[in-house]
Amino acid sequence: MTAQLSKKAEAWSARFSEPVSDLVKRYTASVFFDKRLAKADIQGSLAHAEMLAAQGIISAADRAEIERGMAQIAQEIDAGQFEWLLDLEDVHLNIEKRLTELVGDAGKRLHTGRSRNDQVATDIRLYVRSAIDDILALLASLRGALTDLAEDNADTILPGFTHMQVAQPITFGHHMLAYVEMFGRDAERMADCRKRVNRLPLGAAALAGTTFPIDRVRVAKTLGFDDVCHNSLDAVSDRDFAIEFTAAASLIMTHVSRMSEELVIWMSPRVGFIDIADRFCTGSSIMPQKKNPDVPELARGKTGRVYGHLMGLLTLMKGQPLAYNKDNQEDKEPLFDTVDTVVDTLRIFADMAGGISVKPDAMRGAALQGYATATDLADYLVKKGLPFRDAHEAVARAVRACVDQGCDLADLSLEQLRAFSDLITDDVFGVLTLEGSVAARDHVGGTAPNQVRAAIARVRAQLAAG
Amino acid sequence: MTAQLSKKAEAWSARFSEPVSDLVKRYTASVFFDKRLAKADIQGSLAHAEMLAAQGIISAADRAEIERGMAQIAQEIDAGQFEWLLDLEDVHLNIEKRLTELVGDAGKRLHTGRSRNDQVATDIRLYVRSAIDDILALLASLRGALTDLAEDNADTILPGFTHMQVAQPITFGHHMLAYVEMFGRDAERMADCRKRVNRLPLGAAALAGTTFPIDRVRVAKTLGFDDVCHNSLDAVSDRDFAIEFTAAASLIMTHVSRMSEELVIWMSPRVGFIDIADRFCTGSSIMPQKKNPDVPELARGKTGRVYGHLMGLLTLMKGQPLAYNKDNQEDKEPLFDTVDTVVDTLRIFADMAGGISVKPDAMRGAALQGYATATDLADYLVKKGLPFRDAHEAVARAVRACVDQGCDLADLSLEQLRAFSDLITDDVFGVLTLEGSVAARDHVGGTAPNQVRAAIARVRAQLAAG
Amino acid sequence: MTAQLSKKAEAWSARFSEPVSDLVKRYTASVFFDKRLAKADIQGSLAHAEMLAAQGIISAADRAEIERGMAQIAQEIDAGQFEWLLDLEDVHLNIEKRLTELVGDAGKRLHTGRSRNDQVATDIRLYVRSAIDDILALLASLRGALTDLAEDNADTILPGFTHMQVAQPITFGHHMLAYVEMFGRDAERMADCRKRVNRLPLGAAALAGTTFPIDRVRVAKTLGFDDVCHNSLDAVSDRDFAIEFTAAASLIMTHVSRMSEELVIWMSPRVGFIDIADRFCTGSSIMPQKKNPDVPELARGKTGRVYGHLMGLLTLMKGQPLAYNKDNQEDKEPLFDTVDTVVDTLRIFADMAGGISVKPDAMRGAALQGYATATDLADYLVKKGLPFRDAHEAVARAVRACVDQGCDLADLSLEQLRAFSDLITDDVFGVLTLEGSVAARDHVGGTAPNQVRAAIARVRAQLAAG
Amino acid sequence: MTAQLSKKAEAWSARFSEPVSDLVKRYTASVFFDKRLAKADIQGSLAHAEMLAAQGIISAADRAEIERGMAQIAQEIDAGQFEWLLDLEDVHLNIEKRLTELVGDAGKRLHTGRSRNDQVATDIRLYVRSAIDDILALLASLRGALTDLAEDNADTILPGFTHMQVAQPITFGHHMLAYVEMFGRDAERMADCRKRVNRLPLGAAALAGTTFPIDRVRVAKTLGFDDVCHNSLDAVSDRDFAIEFTAAASLIMTHVSRMSEELVIWMSPRVGFIDIADRFCTGSSIMPQKKNPDVPELARGKTGRVYGHLMGLLTLMKGQPLAYNKDNQEDKEPLFDTVDTVVDTLRIFADMAGGISVKPDAMRGAALQGYATATDLADYLVKKGLPFRDAHEAVARAVRACVDQGCDLADLSLEQLRAFSDLITDDVFGVLTLEGSVAARDHVGGTAPNQVRAAIARVRAQLAAG
Repeated sequence: MTAQLSKKAEAWSARFSEPVSDLVKRYTASVFFDKRLAKADIQGSLAHAEMLAAQGIISAADRAEIERGMAQIAQEIDAGQFEWLLDLEDVHLNIEKRLTELVGDAGKRLHTGRSRNDQVATDIRLYVRSAIDDILALLASLRGALTDLAEDNADTILPGFTHMQVAQPITFGHHMLAYVEMFGRDAERMADCRKRVNRLPLGAAALAGTTFPIDRVRVAKTLGFDDVCHNSLDAVSDRDFAIEFTAAASLIMTHVSRMSEELVIWMSPRVGFIDIADRFCTGSSIMPQKKNPDVPELARGKTGRVYGHLMGLLTLMKGQPLAYNKDNQEDKEPLFDTVDTVVDTLRIFADMAGGISVKPDAMRGAALQGYATATDLADYLVKKGLPFRDAHEAVARAVRACVDQGCDLADLSLEQLRAFSDLITDDVFGVLTLEGSVAARDHVGGTAPNQVRAAIARVRAQLAAG
Repeated sequence: MTAQLSKKAEAWSARFSEPVSDLVKRYTASVFFDKRLAKADIQGSLAHAEMLAAQGIISAADRAEIERGMAQIAQEIDAGQFEWLLDLEDVHLNIEKRLTELVGDAGKRLHTGRSRNDQVATDIRLYVRSAIDDILALLASLRGALTDLAEDNADTILPGFTHMQVAQPITFGHHMLAYVEMFGRDAERMADCRKRVNRLPLGAAALAGTTFPIDRVRVAKTLGFDDVCHNSLDAVSDRDFAIEFTAAASLIMTHVSRMSEELVIWMSPRVGFIDIADRFCTGSSIMPQKKNPDVPELARGKTGRVYGHLMGLLTLMKGQPLAYNKDNQEDKEPLFDTVDTVVDTLRIFADMAGGISVKPDAMRGAALQGYATATDLADYLVKKGLPFRDAHEAVARAVRACVDQGCDLADLSLEQLRAFSDLITDDVFGVLTLEGSVAARDHVGGTAPNQVRAAIARVRAQLAAG
Repeated sequence: MTAQLSKKAEAWSARFSEPVSDLVKRYTASVFFDKRLAKADIQGSLAHAEMLAAQGIISAADRAEIERGMAQIAQEIDAGQFEWLLDLEDVHLNIEKRLTELVGDAGKRLHTGRSRNDQVATDIRLYVRSAIDDILALLASLRGALTDLAEDNADTILPGFTHMQVAQPITFGHHMLAYVEMFGRDAERMADCRKRVNRLPLGAAALAGTTFPIDRVRVAKTLGFDDVCHNSLDAVSDRDFAIEFTAAASLIMTHVSRMSEELVIWMSPRVGFIDIADRFCTGSSIMPQKKNPDVPELARGKTGRVYGHLMGLLTLMKGQPLAYNKDNQEDKEPLFDTVDTVVDTLRIFADMAGGISVKPDAMRGAALQGYATATDLADYLVKKGLPFRDAHEAVARAVRACVDQGCDLADLSLEQLRAFSDLITDDVFGVLTLEGSVAARDHVGGTAPNQVRAAIARVRAQLAAG
Repeated sequence: MTAQLSKKAEAWSARFSEPVSDLVKRYTASVFFDKRLAKADIQGSLAHAEMLAAQGIISAADRAEIERGMAQIAQEIDAGQFEWLLDLEDVHLNIEKRLTELVGDAGKRLHTGRSRNDQVATDIRLYVRSAIDDILALLASLRGALTDLAEDNADTILPGFTHMQVAQPITFGHHMLAYVEMFGRDAERMADCRKRVNRLPLGAAALAGTTFPIDRVRVAKTLGFDDVCHNSLDAVSDRDFAIEFTAAASLIMTHVSRMSEELVIWMSPRVGFIDIADRFCTGSSIMPQKKNPDVPELARGKTGRVYGHLMGLLTLMKGQPLAYNKDNQEDKEPLFDTVDTVVDTLRIFADMAGGISVKPDAMRGAALQGYATATDLADYLVKKGLPFRDAHEAVARAVRACVDQGCDLADLSLEQLRAFSDLITDDVFGVLTLEGSVAARDHVGGTAPNQVRAAIARVRAQLAAG
């Protein structure tokens, strides 16, 4: 009875006069990667069977048999005892064939009112939804760890750079919070994407819906979907939700790559702002002295991988006519690898945040190089009444003089300073200190330590609210 | 007094011992493309000046002068009389220099408490926000036009294809609604992106905030922003909102490319399902008989352009250390071209939807080829008690016989049909008609004409709600 | 003795105060994919050892021991008995540790004068060189198969399309030869790329060369490299050869995607120009009548995968400072997957070319629709003395009349034709036939059957010359 | 007479019942960017006319008229007096229409035996060929400038980095030569690409060749093409040469981005290895002290632009059926922008190389930090008989001790060193100097100053040979 499913090719064999060649079988098979969808596939099938029985399309007994069979299959898969067969092409037929072995005709009735097209679309959505939930938790965890680091360093001064040149003093806590903001937006994007992922395609069948009196809203409710897909052709053929997910993942990796770049530079000996704990570093097979920040480097490298998957998926969908085409089988591997890459990277970064040791002396030393308080002097002159552009010009001349003399602005005497503007009086030296500079940027989003602490409180409240 | 701004290089000249070379000036200048931000730049400056005056940082008189100057500049730009100077590098310095010419020291005071870094970030956000609003309106307009076409063709039967093979009969209205759904999700994505765009970076100054007692919330309110950016380093350095916008635009173009592919195929003479009005087509310089669907072809081609911009922007941000780097100047051209491409394409597609004429006879003829109702026969057998997989097998044998005899399923006699299953009785012929097949897929999202009409009503309500 | 290599982390352990965490170990390990380089790694090590002995850097006895150990390792790997350890991170340390187990101190001497940086660069180049040779053979095989198909159809007429509209009659042989040309250029590109791949990085050591008196030219000769890399920093850090390879692979997939698109359209029932043998097609789990051209669809989909890898590799190298960074570990998986995808796809396409059956009647029927000989009529008028632009205009009017009357140009009477130009005489009907039209394009590169045969002879000569 | 070309739409008007809408006209027009092909278009037309006359297809008098008209048009374009009309859509029709105005029927005869499809393909190839020649000259110029810098610094020691950690001492000359090698391979790739660009598509006409007795080889010779395209369908429809060009350009930008990254880091004050002349830098509108390396930053940013164009072009061609489709119009803008970006960037980099001042003291200071000679000590022990892996371990312990004591290896006494291996004797101190380390890497490709000088001589010979 079940023989006709023992080889995938035989699912449609009556129409075909020769079997699929082995090369083709291997080329077109997906079971070796899509078996990862097994859990989602079983979940979807159970919800479908529940509805079929509720609608009287199959009997309650058939449903019970299907549940019994699926329970055993789930167990076999967990135990690593399930035998995946290339001949059965994909995860769906592998599971259905085993089900039919276990429960006979009830298994053959499971596919009533659905098709592999809507089945696989449902499986992928369940998979992506679960991946988003994992990623949201990991983003929260990383944001929490960075916020801890920020709190410990709310007063730690380092130079803020633009163009990799010293710009103005900032605090390390403020710098870390920049990443907390970025990963916060990444979480928003994932949550927005989840809304579009969380709609049920099942019931679209092959492309047009089915002639059975199905209840799609019931299935959606069972599976925790917010809504059903409202057009069957669209439901089976579009993968925009997967592309949106990969685009959001690409932005996470963009932010990871930026943070990695900084960690690598900061750990370079000429900069020396931080050290990363040994457990996140590796050495060299030839240079015994090396300690390399492998984790951020590799994470930076993995950015390309996720960008590549995004490009691959966009290319895949470009110009595809409705409805389902075999091209779409290629949606899975980039998606799986994107999830793995983002999940592993966020996990390791959340962990590594606790392994960063800050070197405040090196940071402070760097801030004292490079005229970091020049803007403060310009602002000082503006407050004394000079138009901003004229103040800027006066300070530029003072910096030029310091460069020529190899000293800092704070090293100039009052008399020397007054050569550039007679508005300068001896209250100027307060604004030329690093602490004075940082504390003065005291508005929402600014680098003043009390603003940093306010921002930390705001993030903690966000994270607590979930 | 204003001389030091007459050349951009002189904005920092006191620090430099030689002028920027002409080649460098040309290479680094942005004014020839960023002048497009002029309106946003003025809008941002006015809000900034209003706040500076309210906070007592500049005088009311200065603010009035700035407003008078900006009004004149806006007028000059509108009239095409504004002289854009390469020497002033970008839109910001061009406008500020002109302002200082017009109103003197008040103009020089405008830049108090801000920097070009937060200024340009604000301008871009104002620009993208406005582009999103345009795109949302155009998506609504395109969805409306496609819904009209769907309504006219709620009963028009054509073959639904999977793998470009005839699968099951569907209605053309249903097919059009698939695109209405896709463009609906595109609108959702744009609206979600708008939330992240609509936050104010102004006040971040160069990277750390400013020492002036600014009121960022006031500026946000004046400019219609929902919130302020909560970290100054992040505010001036990240462009994830622009990447998110371009990713959403890429999905719009993906959907456009799919629709274009279908229009081109449908208009090919062997298919002949539709005609597109002459005003959207062009001919050939050598083949007098040609009428080419240039618009959908070109739109399909333009998909690559937007994908390319997305990749360009992702590459731009990859591995960039905080805070602002000159690399970021490269964010504008891809963004501008993405907006132009999407806006023009949506506008022309909304227009073209009204120029599509449907050829129902060709569609029907095609649906009668290819055993489109085979699934209906299988479902029929299931309803008579056969397990789905066995029913599938029986129908496959019947199709095979039809292929051999060169006839359709409906052409077989009852006796011939019963050779494949004795569950078949003479009620079978009802399910083998195109109308019967289509009408039977009568659940939410299915192709039955009354479901198509319900879906149209749903979309109309959405569009009316805006 | 060999204990210190039993865990990878211990290769540099003396410098480190805590072991690498398990999460980091898994994140940074490459052995599960780079073991694919084992054969190349052994090949490179043997050549290195041969040179070390020849230069007197190690003893002949050590070299003999290394060879003995490597022979056994190769055998263990072939037999699937080699134990790959995550703790040893990569293919290189796994093999070296086993070697040291087998041959003691000789194994520890193998790494003299080299580093993993130049070792892995050498391995990848050996791998890519071998992949290029495979791809060149497969491209030749595919070109041969398409040329056979072209030869069988040198006279088979079908409509040539531009814009998917009927343009002019061509032969199917001519059409197939277009792909033969494309794949020919792909082969040229691969051969050009091979020149740059085939240069030896070994001897660059970690980044600066080595203090041992090595002979790089000797190693290059042993391994069949054309030259050595002439700068050690460049040798260990650049992967442009891998990107060039992936770009060439992307163009192969571009050409495959174009051919696939045509095969899918040609097999669609409304077009029906070809059939593809059942062994390359699959059916449907729900629609018993379906026969889907899975192979070309999937190949078209796989195009995105290779484009994505190209984008990933470009992103990887963007902005990387010299010399080696851990980012570069990410070069391997996209490269391996690109090779697999291209190799499998070319193999299956070469095979499938023999499974394409041509339906000349459908092709001819389509060529008779669509005024395919309109250009011939225009050319006819030009030859009678009308300027081309005027002739074009006259024929356009004739086509317009035919469209209105629902007939072809050849259906018009001489009198009707003369209404558009009195230069037309009864010799016109010869130029309005499909055979006449095709035969008249009789110059190099044209579609005339004898030109097609000449082109076939040219390709066969190329292929024979290898 | 010429009226029918006064609007582009009228080139095929007799077939159309309504004019193209203004929106469509603007959307589909290319004249505002493809007028850049005017010179190539005229060059191609003149070669075509020469051949038509030689073959007796047009009269010698017509050819003379065409040449006279084209000379005037070229002059009008050069003088900026040529009136480009949107209504005429593209560069080809604009020029042809003007030609017909100037020389009447001879102008109308020019299009005999060709089509816009092969005409535009020819124009683009002429354009790309010329761009490649420009780029080859600029690459040579940049390589020359970097070689000069290398020569001046053949003995200047700086630390070589891997993972941004100090690895081994190298010379700055050696470092510069790494880029000379990279740009050398870029030149090879461009030269290889040129072979495939330099084939003549003209004569392919619309897609199938022409019925006129043309001589394609003659035209190829006139235009300096190496060969003709051997298949007409391929000739008009593929753009792989443009993609190959853009891929080669992407690799140039990859190398530029790597060099830029290093320049930016080296100029950062904590590193301070170099200064870049003021004429390549800009300042800040708010921070008077800033001097920013704008040119390398912007070049690094422009990398994304070229990568994006590559992705755009690949997407454009993916899945395009033969022969010409309107999609292909989108090939031009990315190509033009790629050429501009690469040409401008190479020119400015060749110039900037002369504006780099090296700070040997800072470099030397950095090399003395970080145990740069640890590998030398390990090699020393190997030469004394210790297996490499054991030597590595001993040195790692020594470095660990130095880290703990805050000193360098050279600071340890002989006695202290011997604690790690009793093979160490007082000849060890020679190998621990920077000069000793660098000089010892004395083989082809190594960093020893005499190897650097040999490499410089080799590059100079290459450049002299052209």
